[in-house]
Amino acid sequence: MLENLKEEVYKAHMNLWKNRLVMWTSGNVSGRDPKTDLVVIKPSGVSYDKLSPDNLVIVDLNGKIIEGQLRPSVDTTTHLYIYKHMPDVISVIHTHSIYASAFAAIGKPIPVCLTAMADFFGGDIPVGGLVLIGEEEIGKEIVRKIGNLKAIIMKNHGPFTIGKSVSEALKAAIFLEESARTLIMAKILGEPQSIPESIVNKLHKNYIEKYGQ
Amino acid sequence: MLENLKEEVYKAHMNLWKNRLVMWTSGNVSGRDPKTDLVVIKPSGVSYDKLSPDNLVIVDLNGKIIEGQLRPSVDTTTHLYIYKHMPDVISVIHTHSIYASAFAAIGKPIPVCLTAMADFFGGDIPVGGLVLIGEEEIGKEIVRKIGNLKAIIMKNHGPFTIGKSVSEALKAAIFLEESARTLIMAKILGEPQSIPESIVNKLHKNYIEKYGQ
Amino acid sequence: MLENLKEEVYKAHMNLWKNRLVMWTSGNVSGRDPKTDLVVIKPSGVSYDKLSPDNLVIVDLNGKIIEGQLRPSVDTTTHLYIYKHMPDVISVIHTHSIYASAFAAIGKPIPVCLTAMADFFGGDIPVGGLVLIGEEEIGKEIVRKIGNLKAIIMKNHGPFTIGKSVSEALKAAIFLEESARTLIMAKILGEPQSIPESIVNKLHKNYIEKYGQ
Amino acid sequence: MLENLKEEVYKAHMNLWKNRLVMWTSGNVSGRDPKTDLVVIKPSGVSYDKLSPDNLVIVDLNGKIIEGQLRPSVDTTTHLYIYKHMPDVISVIHTHSIYASAFAAIGKPIPVCLTAMADFFGGDIPVGGLVLIGEEEIGKEIVRKIGNLKAIIMKNHGPFTIGKSVSEALKAAIFLEESARTLIMAKILGEPQSIPESIVNKLHKNYIEKYGQ
Repeated sequence: MLENLKEEVYKAHMNLWKNRLVMWTSGNVSGRDPKTDLVVIKPSGVSYDKLSPDNLVIVDLNGKIIEGQLRPSVDTTTHLYIYKHMPDVISVIHTHSIYASAFAAIGKPIPVCLTAMADFFGGDIPVGGLVLIGEEEIGKEIVRKIGNLKAIIMKNHGPFTIGKSVSEALKAAIFLEESARTLIMAKILGEPQSIPESIVNKLHKNYIEKYGQ
Repeated sequence: MLENLKEEVYKAHMNLWKNRLVMWTSGNVSGRDPKTDLVVIKPSGVSYDKLSPDNLVIVDLNGKIIEGQLRPSVDTTTHLYIYKHMPDVISVIHTHSIYASAFAAIGKPIPVCLTAMADFFGGDIPVGGLVLIGEEEIGKEIVRKIGNLKAIIMKNHGPFTIGKSVSEALKAAIFLEESARTLIMAKILGEPQSIPESIVNKLHKNYIEKYGQ
Repeated sequence: MLENLKEEVYKAHMNLWKNRLVMWTSGNVSGRDPKTDLVVIKPSGVSYDKLSPDNLVIVDLNGKIIEGQLRPSVDTTTHLYIYKHMPDVISVIHTHSIYASAFAAIGKPIPVCLTAMADFFGGDIPVGGLVLIGEEEIGKEIVRKIGNLKAIIMKNHGPFTIGKSVSEALKAAIFLEESARTLIMAKILGEPQSIPESIVNKLHKNYIEKYGQ
Repeated sequence: MLENLKEEVYKAHMNLWKNRLVMWTSGNVSGRDPKTDLVVIKPSGVSYDKLSPDNLVIVDLNGKIIEGQLRPSVDTTTHLYIYKHMPDVISVIHTHSIYASAFAAIGKPIPVCLTAMADFFGGDIPVGGLVLIGEEEIGKEIVRKIGNLKAIIMKNHGPFTIGKSVSEALKAAIFLEESARTLIMAKILGEPQSIPESIVNKLHKNYIEKYGQ
């Protein structure tokens, strides 16, 4: 059941692990099947070296387990809230990646100081307030604050990214971490310079229209 | 003798090495067999590329060598003191991992500014004073200061973690390093925000009750 | 067609990827064939795990596709402008590598504080202004500001390096990143000390005359 | 000729490369054969992926090439000066490793703030002045300033380590880099605390007498 989606969600987990955005058991990826609204998600507390497409869990939008021997991620409620309230979203990724989580620890947004951020994100990465895990509160805060961005930093917690495909949410998670890391290193040297909004808009438009095949 | 425990202690050493929490010959893992109170520990000064389950040393709680051709780690006295005074502890891990040791160099505790720290540790990581190696003083200081945490930073020295299993002590060592790294990166940006104690307690309770399988 | 150059450009991409100077689809290498003035360059938006010598694109100096099924990099205009105005240049490399891009985010040059920088670069790495991507403006700014250096940092954007061979441009990209990283780490400790210009000149001359085989 | 020493020097180069203390062609290891006073050293400008025991160069203490098709490292004069003036030294290693070179860029010694530094080095890592490469001046400055330490940081340049074996010089290079990195990370948090000299001496004595097999 949903074998392709399971494979894709599994590979995204492995990609995060290989790029050291997640470790041990932390972080989770989910993917929504647009036809059935079923969601494939990581089982709770399973370490990355034991993860396989076969032990991923399938739940419906109410959190009912449809397939799988294991309990789904404790973040499942958050993923499902996003899917229920943002119908374009096909994938949600949550990590505790070091540099994005550093912004979470101080509770400030990541400003657009790099053309690559303007290209891909098109605006500052917003910060959501500290809300408790496992309740709908995190999902609500994300939906309320993420705007038309593909990423948000939850205060004291870490980043969530979304995408119209698993690949897009994964790219957002990786680019977010690289952007956060570059800006933290820049902060050692001085004050990172924001790109004027009019140029951010041009770069983002240009990227959407011309980048890729 | 104690082949399973040796295998587990060996794999934990390899995991630390792969994750770059230890290098060359530094750092050590031990595991206690609850039935016999025998302890499996790293031999002194053996580099990680030459370590195997077979050259680990077995000692009793008084430090007498029960099996093994090599001398045990110079930190053995510390490990044994902890086992003698904390009967729940099954594994002790000591590293000089970069980011946790950076906190050791300034001699300050690691504050809970991340929900992942609240979840797993449940409080600030304490700091123990500078005491000489190879004597019972380090063990005493750890037992005196670690409270109900799974990790402590010894001033000018580095982290020790403990667990009710080798896996738990290993997870503590890895999470400690990642938390320390995130907070050091956050400090470049501004002042990391501590999570209020009432929320730390809720998150920790929730994690113990609901996380994993 | 141009199989050797394609192989060389492909390997340079893989080298950047392995050394984590590029990720996902970002960054690009081109190489110019001095006999035909044809240029081999990365296709746009193709991820590094899917890149091969066969899907590189060959364009002429006006940007006309001579061989290849895919659209060339959105940075192609910049590469071609450099080739048209700097006849010695055989290779151009553009990355968003973390530490060089940190200098881009604050918009300041990288001072020569290391003998290795004096040896290889022979002067401070200059900064070019923020100009929009995909137009000749980036190429113009590079040609205007790079002087006789092998590298330049484009403000808010990232580094470009050039060379009389693919290997030289690649070495410049790697050395630039290592130099930037060292100086950012030095800045944490205090103020990096510039090497006096007369010594920089001697070191650079000595390197050109005596280094290598 | 000197096949074992060549193998050892080759492996040390590979170890530095794997641990990212050197890159591309930078850095060099030499080993002295105590019977013949011949020295095995890296050829100049050869990249690590092309290095082999067979292309290492053998020179005598006056720099005359005894075996090898390639020119020896431009740092050969420095290595030889050390061997001629410090008869106990069997191996010299020079790198531009990031964190030790960050101390070089600001020109300050690395204080003993970690017990691992007290154990292995036994004192602050000294700084030598900026002197030109390829002359005896670098060797003279090292011999003048290194005292009884196994490492020195040359201002604006990078670290040199020495040892009574290739393995000891290599361990010094790796421990130096890890110590420098830890202290730079500590500096982000506050002021690293030096260990009192009397304790440094005790730890160093204890390490020499009890550590290892």
